[in-house]
Amino acid sequence: MSPALVAQRRSSSTSQKVKVDFDQSTGVAVMHMQSPPVNSLSLEFLTDVCIALEKLEMDKSCRGLVVTSSQPKVFSAGLDILDMYGKSPEHCAEFWKAVQEMWLKFYGSDMITIAAVNGSSPAGGCLLSMTCDYRIMADNPRYSIGLNETKLGIVAPFWFKDTMVNTVGHRTTEMALQLGLLYSPAEALKIGLVDQLVREDQVLTTATETMTKWLAIPDHARQLTKSMMRKPTIDKLTSNREADVNNFVKFITKDSIQKSLGMYLEMLKRRKA
Amino acid sequence: MSPALVAQRRSSSTSQKVKVDFDQSTGVAVMHMQSPPVNSLSLEFLTDVCIALEKLEMDKSCRGLVVTSSQPKVFSAGLDILDMYGKSPEHCAEFWKAVQEMWLKFYGSDMITIAAVNGSSPAGGCLLSMTCDYRIMADNPRYSIGLNETKLGIVAPFWFKDTMVNTVGHRTTEMALQLGLLYSPAEALKIGLVDQLVREDQVLTTATETMTKWLAIPDHARQLTKSMMRKPTIDKLTSNREADVNNFVKFITKDSIQKSLGMYLEMLKRRKA
Amino acid sequence: MSPALVAQRRSSSTSQKVKVDFDQSTGVAVMHMQSPPVNSLSLEFLTDVCIALEKLEMDKSCRGLVVTSSQPKVFSAGLDILDMYGKSPEHCAEFWKAVQEMWLKFYGSDMITIAAVNGSSPAGGCLLSMTCDYRIMADNPRYSIGLNETKLGIVAPFWFKDTMVNTVGHRTTEMALQLGLLYSPAEALKIGLVDQLVREDQVLTTATETMTKWLAIPDHARQLTKSMMRKPTIDKLTSNREADVNNFVKFITKDSIQKSLGMYLEMLKRRKA
Repeated sequence: MSPALVAQRRSSSTSQKVKVDFDQSTGVAVMHMQSPPVNSLSLEFLTDVCIALEKLEMDKSCRGLVVTSSQPKVFSAGLDILDMYGKSPEHCAEFWKAVQEMWLKFYGSDMITIAAVNGSSPAGGCLLSMTCDYRIMADNPRYSIGLNETKLGIVAPFWFKDTMVNTVGHRTTEMALQLGLLYSPAEALKIGLVDQLVREDQVLTTATETMTKWLAIPDHARQLTKSMMRKPTIDKLTSNREADVNNFVKFITKDSIQKSLGMYLEMLKRRKA
Repeated sequence: MSPALVAQRRSSSTSQKVKVDFDQSTGVAVMHMQSPPVNSLSLEFLTDVCIALEKLEMDKSCRGLVVTSSQPKVFSAGLDILDMYGKSPEHCAEFWKAVQEMWLKFYGSDMITIAAVNGSSPAGGCLLSMTCDYRIMADNPRYSIGLNETKLGIVAPFWFKDTMVNTVGHRTTEMALQLGLLYSPAEALKIGLVDQLVREDQVLTTATETMTKWLAIPDHARQLTKSMMRKPTIDKLTSNREADVNNFVKFITKDSIQKSLGMYLEMLKRRKA
Repeated sequence: MSPALVAQRRSSSTSQKVKVDFDQSTGVAVMHMQSPPVNSLSLEFLTDVCIALEKLEMDKSCRGLVVTSSQPKVFSAGLDILDMYGKSPEHCAEFWKAVQEMWLKFYGSDMITIAAVNGSSPAGGCLLSMTCDYRIMADNPRYSIGLNETKLGIVAPFWFKDTMVNTVGHRTTEMALQLGLLYSPAEALKIGLVDQLVREDQVLTTATETMTKWLAIPDHARQLTKSMMRKPTIDKLTSNREADVNNFVKFITKDSIQKSLGMYLEMLKRRKA
């Protein structure tokens, strides 16, 4: 194949915060999250991510997606607290719908999705990686992954919980969620929260190699199978989105919760300084 | 803190069969089961245990509960067969309601509950430990734990089963319940029926140390999370209590089952002699 | 016991494709699948297997069943593709009802069922082994077991999926089904798809020894327990049999699927030649 043709077959689309490289010769796209400093899932960033995903989903030539981070040391720091602290109920509702949308789109994706977790991945970052079909994490003991919401005084909603139960089972989820546990890569592998650990500089190449194995499966049969496994979990949120938004807004706008979030933000500021 | 103040901050309430030490400075209570010889869960003992739990539950300063045994070598021998052998259907129904009540109260407790399993824990004893948030067992190979009902010719009801599935998963539960398996501490740790093994003289201190980690989590978030994990299982019994009592009474008063229980009691007597 | 009496107490019934040895002194039957070359589950063979099982089920003196293969290197190669390739919708429907019937009868059997997996066991063969209470596999790395439907472009139906989730959990099933994974005996043991590995010449004797342990449990209690564990899964198919048949027929008679099956059959022929 001539270099020119190869060039033609690759496209790259970039919002400010999401860079997508799509290789038409393999049918695989790589989504680089590049929202400094730590890919916090803000309303704006979530919107960009969803638009990028939707475009790929509609392109029938795109069969697989690798999600990774361009930021050092962090895959995604999770939901952006600034979108739920000191904001109007309307803003909080808007934000939560975007979180739901991200989960629905990724967990229900027809594409093969592989998370190349090249950094820490707490809370919403862990959720994003759990929506994927396979998780490869950098074997760096300074990184951690988990749903640590309770440590901040907040609660992972039922569909975060369902996703984790589907990944690591009921008992591990119960303890992990109650204690807001963050796991080292070795611990995460042991409980099945990630599927594979590799050297940090090999996370993305391993994701690409793994993708080849998944691409060997006929799409239609794989998609029906994936849908069969995930549809009941997805349907639970789809038929309760409104109530789930209302619960979130009611909870997050409580004085006591706002105070907790404020203290957490102060702590983060002090840690940076 | 002066010794006098410390003394003031500790309270101890004791029924004949349940001794509760509550340390207000830590917010942690320890419930010592002391119903000789083997903490069999009789109607009377279950009532005492439930009253003690209810008092602690209503005391908002009590955040954590350690459950342990004062009897040597046994955590609890399980349901008291004398309350279901040769008794009237009315007595059997009364007894079963008390077993349900114990499970509902412990599995649904807002407190952090840790089982300090310092001895064998068959059948109802295993159930009691499984209702807790964390299980620490004495690493003594002569002790065992499990739901061994089928070995006596009886059947663990659906909510015993649900609790075990939530703890060790479907497949392990299916085999354990069919065969009435009793596990050594090492085996119990391997399948996740207990969370940690320690030397026998360190079970209680380890429980207290573990409690510290759980107390670091904001109560409200932890309680909502615990409830989210357990509510569906609890609701199943709550909405079927009557039918479950009727099933039990109908089953346990059968001639064939009464005969099995009689033979088992004879065997226990011979073993003692 | 005189040899004559022993002889009397053993009976052997044989269809062309299923040989059943029933030892009345132990209450245990062994079903040898002998449908050359690879025990493919054809409509005819499934019918024979179901008739044999039904006979044993109705004989109250038969308490346990070992299922094994008389064919070399293969336990069962799974559903017979010839019964779904180039056949009328009516034939496909008939065939699928027989597959459902096999699963319903085995998964809901009151007998203790042990699979003596003495060879490879893909797709429907894996399903058959998963319906049993216990799985012993020959420790021969050339053998494999798993639900590999997607590799052929077809999809395991929800009740295959449910059976696997009940055996190895949600996450392992999701990945296994999407990728159509076939596991080596060692891998199968690790994920819990089989319970025990033994030398090839000891599979059947180990099954018989294991049966002794299960026979020690009172039948009535064991049967109620087994039913409690499996009834919800069985009810899901029982109340959806018609729709499930229609789904299968609609899917399998599609041109694209027929083409996939045709290519697969060609590949098998070439491999033999």
